[in-house]
Amino acid sequence: MMHSKRACIVGIGQTEYTKWGKITDRSEFQLACEAIQKAVQDAGLVTSDIDGFASYSNDRNEPIELQVALGIPRLRYSAMLWGGGGGGSCGALDLAAAAIECGQADCVVVFRSLAQGQFGRYGRFDPDGSSFCFPFGLFSPAQNLALPTRRHMHEYGTKVEHFGEIALTCRENAQRNPCAVMGREALDMETYLNSRMISDPLRLFDCCQENDGACAVIVTSMERAKDLDVIPAQVIAAAHGAGPGWGLSGALGGQNPPLEDYASSGARTVAKDLYAKVGMGPKDVDVAQFYDNFTPQVLMSIEDYGFCERGEGGPFVSDGHIRADGSLPINTHGGHHSEAYIHGMNHIVEAVRQIRGTSTTQIKGAEVCLVSGGPGIGPTSAALIGKC
Amino acid sequence: MMHSKRACIVGIGQTEYTKWGKITDRSEFQLACEAIQKAVQDAGLVTSDIDGFASYSNDRNEPIELQVALGIPRLRYSAMLWGGGGGGSCGALDLAAAAIECGQADCVVVFRSLAQGQFGRYGRFDPDGSSFCFPFGLFSPAQNLALPTRRHMHEYGTKVEHFGEIALTCRENAQRNPCAVMGREALDMETYLNSRMISDPLRLFDCCQENDGACAVIVTSMERAKDLDVIPAQVIAAAHGAGPGWGLSGALGGQNPPLEDYASSGARTVAKDLYAKVGMGPKDVDVAQFYDNFTPQVLMSIEDYGFCERGEGGPFVSDGHIRADGSLPINTHGGHHSEAYIHGMNHIVEAVRQIRGTSTTQIKGAEVCLVSGGPGIGPTSAALIGKC
Repeated sequence: MMHSKRACIVGIGQTEYTKWGKITDRSEFQLACEAIQKAVQDAGLVTSDIDGFASYSNDRNEPIELQVALGIPRLRYSAMLWGGGGGGSCGALDLAAAAIECGQADCVVVFRSLAQGQFGRYGRFDPDGSSFCFPFGLFSPAQNLALPTRRHMHEYGTKVEHFGEIALTCRENAQRNPCAVMGREALDMETYLNSRMISDPLRLFDCCQENDGACAVIVTSMERAKDLDVIPAQVIAAAHGAGPGWGLSGALGGQNPPLEDYASSGARTVAKDLYAKVGMGPKDVDVAQFYDNFTPQVLMSIEDYGFCERGEGGPFVSDGHIRADGSLPINTHGGHHSEAYIHGMNHIVEAVRQIRGTSTTQIKGAEVCLVSGGPGIGPTSAALIGKC
Repeated sequence: MMHSKRACIVGIGQTEYTKWGKITDRSEFQLACEAIQKAVQDAGLVTSDIDGFASYSNDRNEPIELQVALGIPRLRYSAMLWGGGGGGSCGALDLAAAAIECGQADCVVVFRSLAQGQFGRYGRFDPDGSSFCFPFGLFSPAQNLALPTRRHMHEYGTKVEHFGEIALTCRENAQRNPCAVMGREALDMETYLNSRMISDPLRLFDCCQENDGACAVIVTSMERAKDLDVIPAQVIAAAHGAGPGWGLSGALGGQNPPLEDYASSGARTVAKDLYAKVGMGPKDVDVAQFYDNFTPQVLMSIEDYGFCERGEGGPFVSDGHIRADGSLPINTHGGHHSEAYIHGMNHIVEAVRQIRGTSTTQIKGAEVCLVSGGPGIGPTSAALIGKC
């Protein structure tokens, strides 16, 4: 029987996503408020029902300011998965779910708002960052990920066409999604292979976009959800953290995991934790939204979340498994690659759509959706979201 | 019967505290690691037992970096009460307790590390801050608090000698505490009254110090605590949040609460939440560690946590209630005023000492200790810590 305090998602909201290179003229704070208000409305709640906020990755939109702006009478919960990087989306969901289950709050918003162009993210690196790696030419995430990607190719014979298959799958799904920034632009393997090299072996279309925009979801208890006119999406399990050697993966570029984990997504320990919490496994997953900062991160995540053995990610994707009609459809909204890069928060929104049956690439009979967070300076995270 | 997953504090640690004006030559990160290691040792644990971190107020010491530095194999929890200000100490404890009770982690460190001199805090204001209040001369926390303080004096006849009584009490307790920065300097009412005006009516000795230093506590489950050779201090209850109008209290200077709450500590709603969680009240509290950024904050907290009616804080303190032999001994370590200003984290450490019976101003029969967080840009917070 379902625990009445079990956390579930009852509202989803998102702003328009701004295309790479176009800097929004709205503030991050405005974007956050819009996404939150839409999520509240979607749930059939009012903003004064909200009494908690959770976010991640040093989010700049502080709950006390949101409280004032949104007219929220009582704030009872405020938590952030701290540490930089985009891996914390499901970790924020993990915090919110615990707040609900412990009775710390009744309705917690999990959100992420980004107006990166206003904060100097586009194409720049942080000169205060990683001085041990800069002398070796590792300034950007693409350069950092190029090394384990090349290692994976060397160890297992993975080919760039395998990464291309992930890019094409995201783009194909995006073409059905009117909210996807890259939804109108088709991508074929020839175009992928001819795209310019960013950091060998990563080409342009291996890299996700950079966008401005915001997403929010409302987490409440099953008990409360019963009174709402929505299909709740249960937070079956969520986990966050880091295994040995995975600290500073994004920050220092040179990840320092055990050697056998070098050519990996870094999520293996969190994946194990996630499944163990509820006695589930990859066989129970109907659809997955993988954090796709770069296509090899997805390929290695497919392995680390147990959908195939390590090293078999290449053949797995080229066999068509990740397409909408495959055994493990992924990134049905288009992912960061082709919908928008909202640090994985849009992946959670899409997971809820799959459970509601409202995705533009709806997977028939989808009952359990896996969402993964990415690597970064902060912990990584994952969630299983499913039908109640 | 005690729930086996009930959270309790089993380890406390602190660094040396640096006197105001002396900038430590150690990094904040070093201070954090030292306090954490001492807390781990105090608990009879090893650092590899730690699997979670909680902090507050935009702490700069990220858990992933701590994980690497301390050699922690698995990080499973990382949360921060976000938003600036020093009010989140007990909120971080609230998060850690929920993590333990929900099984998200086994041993969570709650910590705060400050090397403020290295980050430009001393005597400076943030030019990016509160542009609505700057034209009216409200640049610093002392200026912000001067207004509700004067209001309290106007409304209720509170006198500066009442504030002085709080300063003298903190100093007297500090003189028994060898770790207190101001422990060797006596303070009498004449010296207090003759101290220079900082922001009328606040004098020098109404203001807390600014110090460098760090504190940490280890939170685990009662079940785990039983195997350790320590007297566990139970987290009876913890709460954090903000009531209507209390957002941005520190940031905008002009707090905008309901008028009847203007001359208050801003903690009334959190106090109610705290007591309601466990059906306890002020009569159950044996000793209190109040967040003392400024002495009037303590006086108004005494009212808001229900130890006397609003407006009666002045007579309450001058009747001797808050002295070590009074009905409500406060800040038995010397508080921020005279031990050190570690953003309320040293108040939690002192609460544990009271429950263990090891304070240098030990209150006989202390079974329940109240700890309050302060005002700020972030939420405020409070905790009841007691014998198991």
